[in-house]
Amino acid sequence: MSAPGLERALERFGAELGADSVVTDRRGLLEYRDPFAFAGWEEHAPAAAVLPRSVEQVQAVVRIAAEHRVPLWTHSTGRNNGYGGAGPLLGGSVVVSLRQMNRVLELDGELGYALVEPGVRWFDLHEAIEQAGLDLMLSIADLGWGGPVGNMLENGVTYLPYGIDWSAQCGMEVVLPTGELLRTGMGAMPGNRAWNLYKRGLGPTLDPLFTQSNYGIVTKLGVWLMPRPEVYRPIWVRIWRDDDIAPLIDTLRSLLLDGTLRMVPTILNTLNTAALHTARADWFDGEGPIPEPEIDRIARELDVGRWMMRLALYGDEPVVAHRFEKVKAAFERIPDADVRSERSFRREEFSQIENGSEKTMAGIPNMAFTHITRWAGGDSGGHIGFSPVVPMTASEILRARGVLREQVHAAGMDYLAGLLPINARSLIHITMLMFDTADEAGTRTAYELARKLVVEAAPHGYGEYRAHVDFMDAAAAQYSFGDHAYRRFCETLKDALDPAGILAPGKNGIWPAHLRG
Amino acid sequence: MSAPGLERALERFGAELGADSVVTDRRGLLEYRDPFAFAGWEEHAPAAAVLPRSVEQVQAVVRIAAEHRVPLWTHSTGRNNGYGGAGPLLGGSVVVSLRQMNRVLELDGELGYALVEPGVRWFDLHEAIEQAGLDLMLSIADLGWGGPVGNMLENGVTYLPYGIDWSAQCGMEVVLPTGELLRTGMGAMPGNRAWNLYKRGLGPTLDPLFTQSNYGIVTKLGVWLMPRPEVYRPIWVRIWRDDDIAPLIDTLRSLLLDGTLRMVPTILNTLNTAALHTARADWFDGEGPIPEPEIDRIARELDVGRWMMRLALYGDEPVVAHRFEKVKAAFERIPDADVRSERSFRREEFSQIENGSEKTMAGIPNMAFTHITRWAGGDSGGHIGFSPVVPMTASEILRARGVLREQVHAAGMDYLAGLLPINARSLIHITMLMFDTADEAGTRTAYELARKLVVEAAPHGYGEYRAHVDFMDAAAAQYSFGDHAYRRFCETLKDALDPAGILAPGKNGIWPAHLRG
Repeated sequence: MSAPGLERALERFGAELGADSVVTDRRGLLEYRDPFAFAGWEEHAPAAAVLPRSVEQVQAVVRIAAEHRVPLWTHSTGRNNGYGGAGPLLGGSVVVSLRQMNRVLELDGELGYALVEPGVRWFDLHEAIEQAGLDLMLSIADLGWGGPVGNMLENGVTYLPYGIDWSAQCGMEVVLPTGELLRTGMGAMPGNRAWNLYKRGLGPTLDPLFTQSNYGIVTKLGVWLMPRPEVYRPIWVRIWRDDDIAPLIDTLRSLLLDGTLRMVPTILNTLNTAALHTARADWFDGEGPIPEPEIDRIARELDVGRWMMRLALYGDEPVVAHRFEKVKAAFERIPDADVRSERSFRREEFSQIENGSEKTMAGIPNMAFTHITRWAGGDSGGHIGFSPVVPMTASEILRARGVLREQVHAAGMDYLAGLLPINARSLIHITMLMFDTADEAGTRTAYELARKLVVEAAPHGYGEYRAHVDFMDAAAAQYSFGDHAYRRFCETLKDALDPAGILAPGKNGIWPAHLRG
Repeated sequence: MSAPGLERALERFGAELGADSVVTDRRGLLEYRDPFAFAGWEEHAPAAAVLPRSVEQVQAVVRIAAEHRVPLWTHSTGRNNGYGGAGPLLGGSVVVSLRQMNRVLELDGELGYALVEPGVRWFDLHEAIEQAGLDLMLSIADLGWGGPVGNMLENGVTYLPYGIDWSAQCGMEVVLPTGELLRTGMGAMPGNRAWNLYKRGLGPTLDPLFTQSNYGIVTKLGVWLMPRPEVYRPIWVRIWRDDDIAPLIDTLRSLLLDGTLRMVPTILNTLNTAALHTARADWFDGEGPIPEPEIDRIARELDVGRWMMRLALYGDEPVVAHRFEKVKAAFERIPDADVRSERSFRREEFSQIENGSEKTMAGIPNMAFTHITRWAGGDSGGHIGFSPVVPMTASEILRARGVLREQVHAAGMDYLAGLLPINARSLIHITMLMFDTADEAGTRTAYELARKLVVEAAPHGYGEYRAHVDFMDAAAAQYSFGDHAYRRFCETLKDALDPAGILAPGKNGIWPAHLRG
């Protein structure tokens, strides 16, 4: 891209959106950088950010960018922390922040859905539901500042029953790289009221093509909302031997497969739970990874076990009562395991929920998990997530733990693991690499380890569900079946849909023709 | 396509597949025609059929077809009756029948899934599960001669819990129009064991792009299998006034939304149920549609009500017991409605299930519904399905019934309706047009009515979930939002993925460049 081209494009963005919606000063652009990269690293610095307020303005931005060959990088409202933040892959890109498009366009209590813009946060949609007095629950992520569009477009995890296999999303409106406006599924028929009710249409189903991709900018998304159950019962399971994660996973799989459990549990190892409440320095100041005896001590002193799982039951009182006894008996077959559930909450008692995780599993947005960033470095703490998908079996979880822990320890870092079963058959293994962003060497060690994990986990059959901006090429390169048939297919689509190659170049390994090696 | 080109292609197909796998005689090709079109109609006659036995042979067929510009039309094992059968849209196409690729490649009892080829029938996969002694259930359609690949690629309906929003499918292998072999999701990573366990991958999710499309030939599909519940309880609900479909739909929606029911019920009106057991001539021999008093008489004499719904509960005994009482009480609030459920079946009692519908809802393939074809014309009876998606509310079902019944009656035909709630928020309204295929005038009336319905239901907001081969262009033309942005998007993909334009030209309105008007 030529500097004059960028200058001219910025002038035209200003003319279309208003000068106050175009950010070019270094300070204003800081939030569109990876917050955990060392301050001196300039690789992914954006040239500017634009904040459209309407679909028409998004179309104008895309058309201007295409004309001047200015690369764009979209961002809605979440932070994408641990995966590169809001920063573009290609330095010098213009970030399109959709934060100002934050309207809840429809909220239907009878059919249980909402139609939202990309800037709508979990907080906003939850508030809209409360204001409307609807007894509906939203499946949310851990941090309320994120939102349904950004989360769902990155295949992010949410925890309520509709979080299973991302089942809450239905129907999209998309601005294509040409500036054309597309509606998917039944939305392609003018006046069709099933757009956000029926997940397909006539002909190919396109919605999932716009997840983790650079084929369009999603401007509207249908989100299904679940009726609040008669009873919600949060449950906590702790196990005290690290290897007991094997029977825990087998037990969990059988309870998910037979429908006793219908939601997305969260399973954290000792250090990951410790990071939610304390700092590494509170426990250990030696060199290298925290030793096993120390981890056992932390497990006891914080009373969190070697692994702790949060889960919940939702439903009619007798159903929840039966299932709770079944769940309790199943997990208590693991020696020393304990299953705690102090109380359940009736539909009208949700305001009494206090614990952050118990709020999250009830669809009440909060920020309880932000403290995790402080584990190493306090205010300047940072983390990277390496997050491969692992089959939901005892042998696989032990294999994955072995492969990942060995690599992490070899780099002198701690093994913090968070396991998220997205369905009954597979889980996402979040490997949290924690470091102090003020320490360049330590930060570089973490980034180098993350890249190494991407490459070295693949031969073991573990691929990432979501890649850090810095390692998207390395991650995508591992999906090489048929001499990289998947990447070639995606590139073919990219060249056809985005001939100017302006939209999120390089996202998940998909580069436009003029930038391919 | 030039005749010499076809001749040369057929020679090469024979050389690659063996002469016995290439069908060219008129008699042998009859099964690749619409079985319900009048015998004299030649419009969709195929030039030949080829029956590959392996992925490599499918790749060879595609490459040869591309070289000689021979249009292909794929078919697996179901009949697609009512939607044009196995016949191609473009006359003179070569049908690629995948019937001989009928292996169950994997069957995993621990994780509950199978990996199958397109020729595997419901009968075959069910038998494989039984032979392996696995306590797993397959979500099936009504006719056992169909199979998971053909059904899922057409967005076909199945009835068990995994039938909700087609949730059973996970992971595909696809031969592209260029002959390249693609694996989707985690299958794009060599040695990744989550291919059939995790529904997405890194980057855009492609699987749904190959449903109802002409972008590739699916050669492998992952199918999830559900553990057999402790108790299976089939339930029948009858209502005796036609308008009571409104409260029935509202009641059903609330039970599906709150999770009391988790499966895909079937709701048939009197004439549709009558057609499963009797012939029109048994009841009425006058001109025009069967009058209301006659329909009431049929409802009483067959004891099937004006609408009859089949549904089922699956789960632990106390859960099913609680839910049955809740379901019974809910539907019995409709005046004169009755809820029947003679018995439930424990896991080990499935062999005692006798009723065809109760077998289907338990995943036991059968052919009980074939009789419906005989309603008009007996041995020469035929039908066309006009099947729009309708929001799951009382007002919408009454609107849809009004619009459709008026059109059907105006053509002098009977209104046979089958309602299939694919999820808690929308249902597919199958409108069955019944006729005698030996009567050309009557058959033409039915086909003309079907085309008329496609066009006239759209302004009311009702679009088809699946189109008859004869009316695909008309159906696709209704999805015109943004000056046909959806069709243009699909055409852009078609031109990029299938430059020779050989794969299923015109399928669901998607034509290759050289055949577009």
